[in-house]
Amino acid sequence: MTNSSFFSIAFGIGTKNSQGNWLEVYYPTPLYQPDSKIVEAVTVTLDYKGGNQALDLNKDQLEPLATALDSIAPEQSDIIRSMVSSTRPLVVTLLETDSALSTTPEAYLKLHLLSHRLVKPHDLDLSGIFPMLPNVAWTNQGAIDLADLPERQMEARLNGELLEVSCIDKFPKMTNYVVPTGVRIAHTARVRLGAYLGEGTTVMHEGFVNFNAGTMGESMIEGRVSAGVVVNSGSDLGGSASIIGTLSGGNDIVISVGEGCLLGANAGLGIPLGDRCTIEAGLYLTAGAKVSVLDSNNQFVEVVKARELANKPDLLFIRNSQSGTIECRTNKSAIELNKELHSHN
Amino acid sequence: MTNSSFFSIAFGIGTKNSQGNWLEVYYPTPLYQPDSKIVEAVTVTLDYKGGNQALDLNKDQLEPLATALDSIAPEQSDIIRSMVSSTRPLVVTLLETDSALSTTPEAYLKLHLLSHRLVKPHDLDLSGIFPMLPNVAWTNQGAIDLADLPERQMEARLNGELLEVSCIDKFPKMTNYVVPTGVRIAHTARVRLGAYLGEGTTVMHEGFVNFNAGTMGESMIEGRVSAGVVVNSGSDLGGSASIIGTLSGGNDIVISVGEGCLLGANAGLGIPLGDRCTIEAGLYLTAGAKVSVLDSNNQFVEVVKARELANKPDLLFIRNSQSGTIECRTNKSAIELNKELHSHN
Amino acid sequence: MTNSSFFSIAFGIGTKNSQGNWLEVYYPTPLYQPDSKIVEAVTVTLDYKGGNQALDLNKDQLEPLATALDSIAPEQSDIIRSMVSSTRPLVVTLLETDSALSTTPEAYLKLHLLSHRLVKPHDLDLSGIFPMLPNVAWTNQGAIDLADLPERQMEARLNGELLEVSCIDKFPKMTNYVVPTGVRIAHTARVRLGAYLGEGTTVMHEGFVNFNAGTMGESMIEGRVSAGVVVNSGSDLGGSASIIGTLSGGNDIVISVGEGCLLGANAGLGIPLGDRCTIEAGLYLTAGAKVSVLDSNNQFVEVVKARELANKPDLLFIRNSQSGTIECRTNKSAIELNKELHSHN
Repeated sequence: MTNSSFFSIAFGIGTKNSQGNWLEVYYPTPLYQPDSKIVEAVTVTLDYKGGNQALDLNKDQLEPLATALDSIAPEQSDIIRSMVSSTRPLVVTLLETDSALSTTPEAYLKLHLLSHRLVKPHDLDLSGIFPMLPNVAWTNQGAIDLADLPERQMEARLNGELLEVSCIDKFPKMTNYVVPTGVRIAHTARVRLGAYLGEGTTVMHEGFVNFNAGTMGESMIEGRVSAGVVVNSGSDLGGSASIIGTLSGGNDIVISVGEGCLLGANAGLGIPLGDRCTIEAGLYLTAGAKVSVLDSNNQFVEVVKARELANKPDLLFIRNSQSGTIECRTNKSAIELNKELHSHN
Repeated sequence: MTNSSFFSIAFGIGTKNSQGNWLEVYYPTPLYQPDSKIVEAVTVTLDYKGGNQALDLNKDQLEPLATALDSIAPEQSDIIRSMVSSTRPLVVTLLETDSALSTTPEAYLKLHLLSHRLVKPHDLDLSGIFPMLPNVAWTNQGAIDLADLPERQMEARLNGELLEVSCIDKFPKMTNYVVPTGVRIAHTARVRLGAYLGEGTTVMHEGFVNFNAGTMGESMIEGRVSAGVVVNSGSDLGGSASIIGTLSGGNDIVISVGEGCLLGANAGLGIPLGDRCTIEAGLYLTAGAKVSVLDSNNQFVEVVKARELANKPDLLFIRNSQSGTIECRTNKSAIELNKELHSHN
Repeated sequence: MTNSSFFSIAFGIGTKNSQGNWLEVYYPTPLYQPDSKIVEAVTVTLDYKGGNQALDLNKDQLEPLATALDSIAPEQSDIIRSMVSSTRPLVVTLLETDSALSTTPEAYLKLHLLSHRLVKPHDLDLSGIFPMLPNVAWTNQGAIDLADLPERQMEARLNGELLEVSCIDKFPKMTNYVVPTGVRIAHTARVRLGAYLGEGTTVMHEGFVNFNAGTMGESMIEGRVSAGVVVNSGSDLGGSASIIGTLSGGNDIVISVGEGCLLGANAGLGIPLGDRCTIEAGLYLTAGAKVSVLDSNNQFVEVVKARELANKPDLLFIRNSQSGTIECRTNKSAIELNKELHSHN
């Protein structure tokens, strides 16, 4: 059998609240577009009828599942067998198609696929994700339902223990679920599950990466990669550099950063940036800013809105320290520039 | 009996150092302006003579206290009964009046009252709070006196354990004491006990809220709400937005943000901002900045210092990207503006 | 015997990965330029032949070592005796000279010397440090090799526990190794081992201090002290203030901040700053910025590049809010200024 068109299968272990609702799910090794033999083995063993479903696994189902997968997906059968001894809630999430989300385990699976680098930002249907992610207290005792938190805090205190509440959010930190190879993350609280960190990425203490966003390769990230933003290989973000995201004012324009770019410290970006562009430290380039374009001789050519410079390569943006004017310096002649600026690309 | 004029009562469980001094106190459900029946029951049972006091509770006092409160404050008696089994230091803090602080348990009680939304920022007498808050090592083994820390670290290491020191500060993180309803806090280390977070507030990873400061309702906080700053409902702070606080250069002017405002990412604010105002991303508006005021036709009217625009509604502040001038754009005619600017309100 | 020229000795307890390689070492009380009696005692007991070495300690060596040090270094012998009961890997690191690094325990020792305030930033040979620091998962179960992490995460999950991964980095947080006296660090994840924090330093939530960098005395740090940067006594960094570091574009110019300076919130610095200088909130002063110098009467004198103002005292840098020009205001007459600016100091 060949590679199937089935979207994803993953075996998980998670946390439920006292009402039996999922708070979160950890999938050690999710499968993206699994081989059709695997799909068939799981389908037959679980009597699965198709569609997108998250099925609770009971202990009796584990050994038959593991056996069915032994020869075709030994890594998966190892995981399933290790689950036999656990008392935690178990789940198998079967996504026949990449569609809008309807359960919490599905939402967690899609976030895992991004952070495992199995799919890239914007390549997944994440519609409906927010209602599927409960707001959770992330603690040193695991995920806790907010309704249960005061009692758990008091209980810990009475026992002379600390219930450390690290995060109250719909998204957990990525590193408690997956740490992709070849990265450094100086302070993991600032990278959400669902971030995509390319090989060779360092996220320093001031860096931040939201879900459905990330870096494609080598990058030094000391600024904020907002939801939906993609930073291409070889680009660096200085400390506190800000990129307007799809959830924070960027609306439907997806902001990206080309290859080999530099956003200086405390700089900001409101347009998709082409390759090899630089924004000077401290300059916030909003889409509506009126920018004086200079040619390769530093001669003034024209004033344009920053959004008209979207995706153009080899630009240097500064605020002239004498005149206060935002300038865009280029390596092109005035004639080339005029042509480009009026090409309405 | 009617509602008393008594300020606050709270039963707590805390940590003392080896000299028997309080390091911190956790009050699960502090009472603000308790019913006079409760005050009477506690007074009689504990032989309390009035004033502001933090009394150590011994085990023998717990059952009589619980019994006295059974019918009038069952939540409190439950807490008191649960304390019987604990070996941790217990305290009852009785504040007859809201006065300057003189003990550590009092200071912690006032910080709890703010974070439980029982009182608003600036509505408490917090004078003398700093000396009452010892500098503490906040660790995964609870609060530790700094003098004891090296020995505890070595001990943990020898046992193959980690003593995680998360914070060395006078203020602990709020969420290890109280998590108010209807909030998200992506990274809890950035909200101090004593912060007031209104229902509907989200504090993102880059957000920060100091004590005696906060949000009154729905807000997306990705910037810094400094000590003393109040952000009114419907206002958002972009990433790294800065507000000058009472402890950091704002002196005696209390900075606030009106309703429905937006501070862009990397922006800054040094004046009290009226309702429905916007500060462009990247612009730091200090009180002394000279601002060109423009009317509804974008015609120049007058240059004023930013502080003269304090508390005025419906203003948009930008730095003109061509001239470098800080401008304030309004929806008013030149005549209306002239009148307002010279009314010395 | 007198003070030796021996560089450093330290007894440590650490973590090795499954291949037996050091991941990290904790030295409770490292010795800097130890008395030659101590050097001799250690040399004789361990049959040490000189040079820079990190020697694994076995249990049989501990009591003889402790005995040899009892009268001359009782604090060290106490530590060595306490190690007898531990099952953790033990090490003694002997640095005859301050030379380029060749082992992980050496690298950790040098970082300890900085954070213990035994040597100041730039006073150590740290060449070759990066390859000596393995990239480690810093967790609530201690340091874990990245190769072992997925298995450990799964294991914890199956047991209903959380493996909290706080940091994926070559550098751990300082406070899990040493907390110098007289400091506050509101959020310890933002101070790396190897930072030097002077007595009286407060690092607020937004502050950050890299290794081989720090503060010499009283300072309120709410901004970023990048690698190699030294902030002198009495200087404050506002929230998100940025200082260009040796690893992030500052190249070989070492940036420092004089005494009694203030960098406003969201400001930035790209030159070594003299004493009593102020940079206005929101202004990023890069080395190449053209600055209008004004005399004590606020009269224009000359335009110079910011780097020509390096290390000069009593300067106030602002961006004129009307003209957009970066200005440097001084307390000097035009004649004095002209002289200074052309002295090529």
